[in-house]
Amino acid sequence: MDLLVVGSVALDTISSPAGEREEQLGGSAIYFSAAASYFSPVRLVGVVGDDFPWDRVDFLRARGVDLDGLETAPGRTFRWRGAYPEMGDARTLSTELNVFQAFRPEIPQAYRSSPVAFLANIDPDLQLAVLDQLEEAELVACDTMNFWIDSRPGRVFDVLGRVQMAFFNDAEVRSLAGEGNLPKAIRRVHAAGPQVVVVKKGEHGALMSHEGSLFAVPAFPLTEVRDPTGAGDSFAGGMMGYLRSRNVFSSQTFKEALIYGTVMASFAVEEFGAEALMDLKDRQIQERAATLVGMISLVPQGNYAKRSP
Amino acid sequence: MDLLVVGSVALDTISSPAGEREEQLGGSAIYFSAAASYFSPVRLVGVVGDDFPWDRVDFLRARGVDLDGLETAPGRTFRWRGAYPEMGDARTLSTELNVFQAFRPEIPQAYRSSPVAFLANIDPDLQLAVLDQLEEAELVACDTMNFWIDSRPGRVFDVLGRVQMAFFNDAEVRSLAGEGNLPKAIRRVHAAGPQVVVVKKGEHGALMSHEGSLFAVPAFPLTEVRDPTGAGDSFAGGMMGYLRSRNVFSSQTFKEALIYGTVMASFAVEEFGAEALMDLKDRQIQERAATLVGMISLVPQGNYAKRSP
Repeated sequence: MDLLVVGSVALDTISSPAGEREEQLGGSAIYFSAAASYFSPVRLVGVVGDDFPWDRVDFLRARGVDLDGLETAPGRTFRWRGAYPEMGDARTLSTELNVFQAFRPEIPQAYRSSPVAFLANIDPDLQLAVLDQLEEAELVACDTMNFWIDSRPGRVFDVLGRVQMAFFNDAEVRSLAGEGNLPKAIRRVHAAGPQVVVVKKGEHGALMSHEGSLFAVPAFPLTEVRDPTGAGDSFAGGMMGYLRSRNVFSSQTFKEALIYGTVMASFAVEEFGAEALMDLKDRQIQERAATLVGMISLVPQGNYAKRSP
Repeated sequence: MDLLVVGSVALDTISSPAGEREEQLGGSAIYFSAAASYFSPVRLVGVVGDDFPWDRVDFLRARGVDLDGLETAPGRTFRWRGAYPEMGDARTLSTELNVFQAFRPEIPQAYRSSPVAFLANIDPDLQLAVLDQLEEAELVACDTMNFWIDSRPGRVFDVLGRVQMAFFNDAEVRSLAGEGNLPKAIRRVHAAGPQVVVVKKGEHGALMSHEGSLFAVPAFPLTEVRDPTGAGDSFAGGMMGYLRSRNVFSSQTFKEALIYGTVMASFAVEEFGAEALMDLKDRQIQERAATLVGMISLVPQGNYAKRSP
């Protein structure tokens, strides 16, 4: 009864104002699993090449991530090379899909009854193929990217018609809906299917729409950001992991999950790759969650401003 | 015991995707007064030329705005011409300062005891001259703009050293602090003086920092924006007007004021100029405030998500 993620596993070469990293472990399924593992056991479906350094995922196994669905295909692992001239402004320098090009996700029999699943940003046709294999899903969320929105919007809408929850960034939801106004764009996504629409806005936080209501959470106020890669997948991991752990899918738990998604994304971007998600203490997660709740809390504090001299 | 504002009164020619307006009533003091008038009597100090169409400010008088401090100088009224190729992206096409160029604000004797004041975006030397004339101010807030931050940052810091509250937009606070990281930039502003720092982020809402805590409010979710001109001044007007009406300057009232500032800015941008601020009902204001509070509320709602078919 675990949380299933289907996505990419990659070796990323990154440069940001904070430094450079060669072939660090990355990919949507890695960030998602690492973040979600603090809340729920996770089952990962993905593909790597025969060059994959398996010791790099030992920390995920140790954290309760089932990697039986991570298959090895002949060839090289997916590689991505990106730069952040400014934080938040990602530029792809090169993409080598390698074994990911021919990835046809086969959900292991033992995983098909997963009640909660996340379809990370992969070809919408593959997302649909995964949906066909899920037998008892109660809450399925999808992510996507501008590449699919621009090239195959119809298939993205087909996916939306079969999931309960969708993740976008600000630009993606406007682009998919063909509507510059965010509230209207969100309405169009709801009309396509999902009851829950989450819009990630990077340093401006996130917005969630559910049952006619919006809920807004600011970004966690970080003083250092080293590598924004994986922020969105860590966000989704925190959110879906929390929802899986509660196993109640209500307005209240969706809101709480948005807080935990924001917290996990904040940890992810503080260090290169998934480093910061390897060994967090529950206390650290709860402290950030409390800070975020405080940032949107109107409860009286009783502190009176002093008149300055 | 009213709320004082010192700022510009202008005739604005605007074009936005929603249309064009010739010489509509504008200027920081107008937007501020109109928004604040829903909460508190207002005293306006500014200057217009002898060409000023006085009937345009009748609505302010009717709403309890004292215009005795709005002097007439020989010459033409300040004119601004701007375009919004996209909403939120203002381009100045021309600025004719006219009588505003020689404006030296003289605070009428009857206004000098105002307990709450707003120094709208004018030359920091003039803001300092106003501060010299205030005798019993308990809460003074200032606004500024990139022009002063770039040309005379030292004088802007001098103003900050003498006010309790400062308004910036996102780019301004980073630029003034010489610090790209927002939490760090806010800390530098606090170190210069103000206990309350408000960062306006347009469609991404606003962030307030006070006594070591941040409070975040999303923008009101509008489906139509016609003219973003005056959003920031309407925001400040709602916020300062509310604070003046409560006359308690605490964490709690600052937070509530941030909600009302956001609400008043949302009305302002829905119509050209200050049109939407001319005749609002209290019910409309309270409804939007309640929506915003709902958008940051974690209170259980008891609505359970349905499994989709």
